[in-house]
Amino acid sequence: MDRNLTMLMDFYELTMANAYYVLGLKDQEVVFDMFYRKNPDSGGFVVCAGLESFIDYIENLKFTDEDIEYLRSRKMFDDGFLEYLRTFKFKGSISAVKEGTIVYPNTPLLTITAPLIDAQLIETALLVLINHQSLIATKANRIVYAAEGAVVMEFGARRAQGPDAAILGSRAAYIGGANATATTIADELYGIKAVGTMAHSWVQFFETEYDAFKAYAEIYPDSCTLLIDTYDVIDSGLPNAIRCAKEVLEPKGHRLKGIRIDSGDLAYLSKKIRKALDANGLEDCQIVVSNSVDEYLIQSLKKQGARIDSYGVGERLITSKSSPVFGGVYKLVAIKRGDKYVEKIKISENSEKITNPGRKRLYRVYNEQGMGYADILALYDEEILGKAEIDVVDSKKEWKHITLKPTTIKELHVPIFENGKLVYEKPSLEEIREYVKYQLEHEVWEEEKRFEYPHLHYVDLTEKLHGLKEGMLEEYSSNK
Amino acid sequence: MDRNLTMLMDFYELTMANAYYVLGLKDQEVVFDMFYRKNPDSGGFVVCAGLESFIDYIENLKFTDEDIEYLRSRKMFDDGFLEYLRTFKFKGSISAVKEGTIVYPNTPLLTITAPLIDAQLIETALLVLINHQSLIATKANRIVYAAEGAVVMEFGARRAQGPDAAILGSRAAYIGGANATATTIADELYGIKAVGTMAHSWVQFFETEYDAFKAYAEIYPDSCTLLIDTYDVIDSGLPNAIRCAKEVLEPKGHRLKGIRIDSGDLAYLSKKIRKALDANGLEDCQIVVSNSVDEYLIQSLKKQGARIDSYGVGERLITSKSSPVFGGVYKLVAIKRGDKYVEKIKISENSEKITNPGRKRLYRVYNEQGMGYADILALYDEEILGKAEIDVVDSKKEWKHITLKPTTIKELHVPIFENGKLVYEKPSLEEIREYVKYQLEHEVWEEEKRFEYPHLHYVDLTEKLHGLKEGMLEEYSSNK
Repeated sequence: MDRNLTMLMDFYELTMANAYYVLGLKDQEVVFDMFYRKNPDSGGFVVCAGLESFIDYIENLKFTDEDIEYLRSRKMFDDGFLEYLRTFKFKGSISAVKEGTIVYPNTPLLTITAPLIDAQLIETALLVLINHQSLIATKANRIVYAAEGAVVMEFGARRAQGPDAAILGSRAAYIGGANATATTIADELYGIKAVGTMAHSWVQFFETEYDAFKAYAEIYPDSCTLLIDTYDVIDSGLPNAIRCAKEVLEPKGHRLKGIRIDSGDLAYLSKKIRKALDANGLEDCQIVVSNSVDEYLIQSLKKQGARIDSYGVGERLITSKSSPVFGGVYKLVAIKRGDKYVEKIKISENSEKITNPGRKRLYRVYNEQGMGYADILALYDEEILGKAEIDVVDSKKEWKHITLKPTTIKELHVPIFENGKLVYEKPSLEEIREYVKYQLEHEVWEEEKRFEYPHLHYVDLTEKLHGLKEGMLEEYSSNK
Repeated sequence: MDRNLTMLMDFYELTMANAYYVLGLKDQEVVFDMFYRKNPDSGGFVVCAGLESFIDYIENLKFTDEDIEYLRSRKMFDDGFLEYLRTFKFKGSISAVKEGTIVYPNTPLLTITAPLIDAQLIETALLVLINHQSLIATKANRIVYAAEGAVVMEFGARRAQGPDAAILGSRAAYIGGANATATTIADELYGIKAVGTMAHSWVQFFETEYDAFKAYAEIYPDSCTLLIDTYDVIDSGLPNAIRCAKEVLEPKGHRLKGIRIDSGDLAYLSKKIRKALDANGLEDCQIVVSNSVDEYLIQSLKKQGARIDSYGVGERLITSKSSPVFGGVYKLVAIKRGDKYVEKIKISENSEKITNPGRKRLYRVYNEQGMGYADILALYDEEILGKAEIDVVDSKKEWKHITLKPTTIKELHVPIFENGKLVYEKPSLEEIREYVKYQLEHEVWEEEKRFEYPHLHYVDLTEKLHGLKEGMLEEYSSNK
């Protein structure tokens, strides 16, 4: 979607940018990291998503004449700055983990190396796009994991937080592993199969429930899933559905594809329905449920022996209801002075808000079986790849000095923009989805996937980076 | 914002519409109500918002050639139907409560009287727009209520669920009573004052915190709010801010407008800061806080005697974090047969999901003081206005028959579209915001505003409507 989101920025980005311009600092190069601090739902990882939207944003970045006139009307901005914005294009370099990468707290998902104004102006759009889509991809993945192979359909548009949340949320859910969507535009734009049959209004419209089922089955004999809870599931919907299968579909060689329930006790009803369907030779008829489903309900239904083939997941997926905020942040980590990058740190009253300073690289180390067992943050110029032993410090237990001996080590960031030019070939949505699936099947520990007290992935700092950080904190303390 | 959201529909709307077309029912007139069942955050009411976006959606509704080709590629749709869509325009009538009306569960916020296809195709867009914006307007209103006159600024864009959630969310927050926003585009589009000063990155960029404050104060001497928690609030940020006021601003006749803290113990710090500012003659310097603020934190801070003038409210407002879903639904209530409307009901396994049947009108009754003390749902053709006594049944306690003797009675819906034509003059955003404020100051009971166990507004059915509903349920039961 080509859409100009340039003005979707926090006003302080403009006041700061104007001030940098006035101070003659517009070409000053700086480095920012985007990272987050906590996994949603106290989970073990995040599926990073939103990179494609962010790339589109950067490529469409342009202040229109109306934007400039609006800013002028605020009477706070230097005329030279406004003229500068008129022809502004993003000139920086961006590296990032590929869309769909499994990521962990306090590691940079994106790093922006750019002139000060460029780096500052993109903050809000970067955060809103990556935060939202990573949140939904992660939530979808949790639901898919709980479903243990049953189909998961994203049904949430009507409860999404606005049109973008419905559309981009559907894309993110697909990345996270959802199988289909109810949102038509997500199929048209992204090729995510849109599915759907009937609302309660269809059933209500006809004189009887059976009439409604019959009419639908005659028009869609090959894709007929009947909604059976408009009046009474067991006494009315189910027998009418079976009758429809027998009297309308089977005589012409069709099968009843499924029934859907959207209310009631899903465990009890699904078992009873399965029995009745099987007793009537409808073993291939799928049971679809769609009421307040999320990963916790699915686990509970599984435990109760519910017989469900397919979940239509609405509001609890599309808003990540149990954990609706992904708190990605964007922090200055270095400033270029001459040929060198001078490291910067943010200290804060809340110790978990202290940042990892400097221009860095992010690595993941794998064992013999190919399982990723730690992430390493290193200074940008440290040699890491190919080393047999790497001395690191556990970022959560800074007294723990460890020597890692990885079988394989991979750098996780790839170049996205170089000096304003897109150098990254965007993968297809299917490729992104497969990449998520591959990592979760081959590289991520089961212990990181469970919902209760998952193993927290090790994120280590190299001795050098750790030393730098310690030194900066000590210097700060002694200056107090 | 002119934007074509036509394809933002659930796929079942298209399969149903196609089937209605095939059955020759495209001109069949029907009536749908949009309503919701529970107030977010277990509150006492909802601020209904999103009508303007919905109007824009209807006015921009148009299937493009690409849309038609996409649908054709799905091989489920009748060619005649696809040609019908090519020139489709909404032809129905819509009534609704005015944007900003205080509303209650199980009352129609909008009623759509339209040909079957028209009514069905707009379901998703209607729900996502009204649900999202009502949710955020209501949350903002709760926060504004808790702030008791202190300034509330919407700071959430970066944590919103996508760009629309940031932009439309900012508008909704303003309707709910927020005073300003950080989101620039919301100012440009809607005239909501965008505010903001500096990020931590500004402070980090300079050699010292004081240098950062000084540079900012020199460029923005009249709107200088300094962020004082980059290193240490009490030992560093606060004394540097005071020094900046004394050495940079005051010598040139300016005052330090404010200080902002984004971390730490806000109650403790704000009291300490207030004392220090006052001791230095900075009584007019405002204290702004912006870390994880919502209505509950604000109430707690007030209780602790915190000295805060202004709240920057981020993720907990823009996602309505503690209650992130607004569950508006869209239900068929009547079908036109000849000259008459035949009532329809949805029964459901969950008794709270049973709908109020028929074409209805929504009234609010007021006492002598102008306080709204009940809503009445009546059949469309019942005479209610001007009646001295109205016999009703409490919708939550159906054994309670009451005779209401209102001083004033108002019908809440106004016509929005008539046979596809917009007949409503959209109020300005300021008018909507003032309307919310007026109702809350003059018409809504304090008991409905409190957060814990608020009084639940009476929603009554007229004896006639109640009788109709009872009759339909009995008829259904006896047919089982």
